[in-house]
Amino acid sequence: MRFKYELKQKSQRNMARLGSFVYNGKEYETPMFMPVGTNATVKTLAPEELKEIGTGIILANTYHLWLNPGDDIVKRAGGLHQFMNYAGPILTDSGGFQVFSLARPKDITEEGVHFKNFKNGDSLFLTPEKSINIQMNLGSDLVMSFDECVKWPSTREYIEQSVERTLRWAKRGKDAFNNPEQMLFGIVQGGEYADLRKKCALELVKMDFDGYAVGGTSVGEDKKTMYKMVEYATTYLPEDKIRYLMGVGDPIDLIENVMRGIDIFDCVSPTRLARHGHAYTWHGKINISNSKYKDDFSPLDSACDCYACKHYTKAYIKHLMSEKETFGARLLSIHNIYFLTQLMAKIRANIATDTLEEFRDAFIKDYYGDGYDYK
Amino acid sequence: MRFKYELKQKSQRNMARLGSFVYNGKEYETPMFMPVGTNATVKTLAPEELKEIGTGIILANTYHLWLNPGDDIVKRAGGLHQFMNYAGPILTDSGGFQVFSLARPKDITEEGVHFKNFKNGDSLFLTPEKSINIQMNLGSDLVMSFDECVKWPSTREYIEQSVERTLRWAKRGKDAFNNPEQMLFGIVQGGEYADLRKKCALELVKMDFDGYAVGGTSVGEDKKTMYKMVEYATTYLPEDKIRYLMGVGDPIDLIENVMRGIDIFDCVSPTRLARHGHAYTWHGKINISNSKYKDDFSPLDSACDCYACKHYTKAYIKHLMSEKETFGARLLSIHNIYFLTQLMAKIRANIATDTLEEFRDAFIKDYYGDGYDYK
Repeated sequence: MRFKYELKQKSQRNMARLGSFVYNGKEYETPMFMPVGTNATVKTLAPEELKEIGTGIILANTYHLWLNPGDDIVKRAGGLHQFMNYAGPILTDSGGFQVFSLARPKDITEEGVHFKNFKNGDSLFLTPEKSINIQMNLGSDLVMSFDECVKWPSTREYIEQSVERTLRWAKRGKDAFNNPEQMLFGIVQGGEYADLRKKCALELVKMDFDGYAVGGTSVGEDKKTMYKMVEYATTYLPEDKIRYLMGVGDPIDLIENVMRGIDIFDCVSPTRLARHGHAYTWHGKINISNSKYKDDFSPLDSACDCYACKHYTKAYIKHLMSEKETFGARLLSIHNIYFLTQLMAKIRANIATDTLEEFRDAFIKDYYGDGYDYK
Repeated sequence: MRFKYELKQKSQRNMARLGSFVYNGKEYETPMFMPVGTNATVKTLAPEELKEIGTGIILANTYHLWLNPGDDIVKRAGGLHQFMNYAGPILTDSGGFQVFSLARPKDITEEGVHFKNFKNGDSLFLTPEKSINIQMNLGSDLVMSFDECVKWPSTREYIEQSVERTLRWAKRGKDAFNNPEQMLFGIVQGGEYADLRKKCALELVKMDFDGYAVGGTSVGEDKKTMYKMVEYATTYLPEDKIRYLMGVGDPIDLIENVMRGIDIFDCVSPTRLARHGHAYTWHGKINISNSKYKDDFSPLDSACDCYACKHYTKAYIKHLMSEKETFGARLLSIHNIYFLTQLMAKIRANIATDTLEEFRDAFIKDYYGDGYDYK
């Protein structure tokens, strides 16, 4: 395995953890945010920019790369690292989330899922073995089991059956997995049911995966429910294994879920928000298209020292976005990913001093202003 | 003036010249190709990438920046260099070309040109004084006189009148120009008529501009006609002043027009071709969308050492373009600008040895194959 996780410190007040992983001789700290490079590129950015921002793991999407250019092409290119010129660690998802969200499955069978290619309508079939094989071809470092990502809300009866199938699929994927250079994650499902999450977690732990993910969040549920789902799962996961919460990136959700024992997060939001002209700041999100920024010659956030904030003004970025110049989305992407990377650094510093709850309260006040209530 | 041009060497066989200019203490060599940053950004690229490519002067468009964000905003931002974070020299055009191509003038009067904003249909009025004032607000280093860019073909009678007006406009612009930090160019018009080009050139030279441009090419004429137009003009321009051919960037045109005494060129083609998936190579242009590149794991050009060619394959760039990932156009833009920059370096090396004609013939053979004939 190219990747080694080590738990360094635990909070005495909540489930937050400091950890590190070593990849190709380089040490990275957790908790960490992972930018998403769906098509083997983090939208608008070069690998060198990610390095300068200080990101660690990045994500690539199995579903998209399977369809284009095809995992065989990526394999022949020498794997994802070579193909996209990224030397850092890469995580691939299982394709399951896209099958269940983008592609609208036609038919979920014990064997796998029949669905339509979201681009051209072709009939496709994805199975646990197929997902693992694609990810082995892609040559990522962190590989996800193929699971069913259930909508919220769903009936308890449906989720119960689905968890059983997800466990059988996890086992089949693990049996198909045979690349000792990669690490394989099991995914805890179970909706908002504590006993189903617990059962799923414990059964996966019995299979002894290299890491564990929490799935089935960010599918429409409210924040309180999401946090519960996470805690129901992480409570039963081994401390010496890395834990990944899939598809979550709202700043407050990063803080809250770190407090529930999560180590790594991914989300498209920093780059997607960027393409729509939004920037995180320590005083909340701003929309650069607001006319008040047309002669605002200050940086996106005066407390930020990212490349965009060091060299460009709101007025310039607003101008670029209004002209649909891609350098605008690029500057906002750099800023937004940097922001989340800095947020994670602050989270880690506050785990070290066990002051994460105070940090969260202060963050909420600065970011949302008074009156924010989700707890 | 922040900019000083010096003629270094002349060919004994044609009109090609080696020169240099010093800008803010840094020396740049001519002949040179200048990438276009219409909206105060060279599309898809950061200033640091231009620096790495080795570009010198870049261009920004007065017409576009006047309309958005407005020259007042750019002035208040501290000028174009500050606004767009580009420390190298910047040339602005007069806005004339866009008025006559994009905007469709309603009415050309002695005073100036009435036309419609190409974005929203608003009525606008541009005069020689207004163009110079906008460019002084933008704070570029090389400023162009406002001229009429005549379509090809036009009647001799029309061009004759137009040249007279362009000369009167040049004088008015020069009178309005009062920033000693900038240099002002006169623009030689006159269509394909040798005597009109000569007259225009000589009259402008009498007014003593800091540099001279050749206009009214790339408006539909064939290559032979373009080369004639250029030679008709450059023959009468002073040797100690820099000469600029506007809007020309086809590789063979760079070589041929250097042989006719041109020092600097601009063109949108390297970045526009990039956005359409085209790459220059020393063996001709390629279209990356061609299916044969889907598993071509070689660089765009094996003889190229640009960032794109050092780190990425045709298969990857094709994949990015097919997914409309902007990093694809960025890699192709880097490559294409680098290609023209390298072509100019080769041109300079062949001026030094006075072998530019042999270089041209070899280039044509490699780039177009046998059978190319325009001479």
